[in-house]
Amino acid sequence: MSYIDNLNWRYATKKFDSTKEITEEKLEALLDAATLSPSSYGLQPYKIIVIEDPVLRARLKPAAWGQSQLTEASHLIVLANQTDFGEELVDDYLQNVSETRNIPVEDLAGYASFMKSKLLDLTQEEKAKWTEKQAYIALGNLLSAAADMKIDTCPMEGFDREQFNDILGLSDDSLNTAVLVTLGYRSKNDETQHYKKVRKPKKQLITHI
Amino acid sequence: MSYIDNLNWRYATKKFDSTKEITEEKLEALLDAATLSPSSYGLQPYKIIVIEDPVLRARLKPAAWGQSQLTEASHLIVLANQTDFGEELVDDYLQNVSETRNIPVEDLAGYASFMKSKLLDLTQEEKAKWTEKQAYIALGNLLSAAADMKIDTCPMEGFDREQFNDILGLSDDSLNTAVLVTLGYRSKNDETQHYKKVRKPKKQLITHI
Repeated sequence: MSYIDNLNWRYATKKFDSTKEITEEKLEALLDAATLSPSSYGLQPYKIIVIEDPVLRARLKPAAWGQSQLTEASHLIVLANQTDFGEELVDDYLQNVSETRNIPVEDLAGYASFMKSKLLDLTQEEKAKWTEKQAYIALGNLLSAAADMKIDTCPMEGFDREQFNDILGLSDDSLNTAVLVTLGYRSKNDETQHYKKVRKPKKQLITHI
Repeated sequence: MSYIDNLNWRYATKKFDSTKEITEEKLEALLDAATLSPSSYGLQPYKIIVIEDPVLRARLKPAAWGQSQLTEASHLIVLANQTDFGEELVDDYLQNVSETRNIPVEDLAGYASFMKSKLLDLTQEEKAKWTEKQAYIALGNLLSAAADMKIDTCPMEGFDREQFNDILGLSDDSLNTAVLVTLGYRSKNDETQHYKKVRKPKKQLITHI
């Protein structure tokens, strides 16, 4: 199936088949794809939290309006953006560049200064807004990668952010629950899989200049 | 090539081959993929602006720090999020649902109220932040779709937003330049294509609970 066929196949899954689990091998392949997501300067200012623990997921469910996917999907992924950062974000990245590409870190000093001049003067709120957008690039890629692997997904913004952060203990690490993705396999009883996909007509969504 | 191979093949292209153009057919396929991007409630609160006009692109270039991709790539896409909206966003969507799925719009009244209760009480700033994140899902999907089609891309956040909005006349339509994507084919002189890809180690990026 083509990329577009996969996008047509996918839908926001309302009912997962709770007896079907994503295999370890497929999960790792999906996480490899997520790890390859582009981000601004390549900084990846977020964490990908994969939650299998059923007790924890039952605790999180009420904080997501009791939506059944929280406990019935095979896996729950929380994309958590860094709400704040200092120069270590850039320095750690350039250390990685240095090791990966075998370049002395001193040779990257100019690039380090450039990135720091762009990022470190942002307010904390601007930093959090920017890192959250980077997490959403990963979200878009993750949903497409899952569709390619015939794994069903439901991205979810309907949750109490403070409760999620509290239960997952994210705030102490300057992390914030940006968005959830539940993943697994659609239940044959999920009627919504048969609904025709609704998208804006291209001539309304797209402008050519 | 697999999805992951494609993600490894792609990179943020610094120099495009200005003699190579994306064909009309490929561009339409790419825009089909972008149109299929998921968004919250399916509302797609953004526009995809495809800019070919070389005069306009030359005007925009100084507002993007003079980066060469603006004029040398085959195409420039601006993802522009709606900075404000009223109930028409929901009503237009449900009109589309009604027509696509052949359901009387009256039957969707409950869903309309639900969505409006979630969205219309947001402040204008919250609305703009939320619509921008939806545009970033489309960005993630667009970059992956292009890689699948062996089209090179460079996503770009380095530009003067106000100047872009002014030159493109977006503000009058409550639109805002969220992010740019330049698209085309890599120049064989772009040394960065040979650099080893840098990503956080999985054990650092990903937490399993």
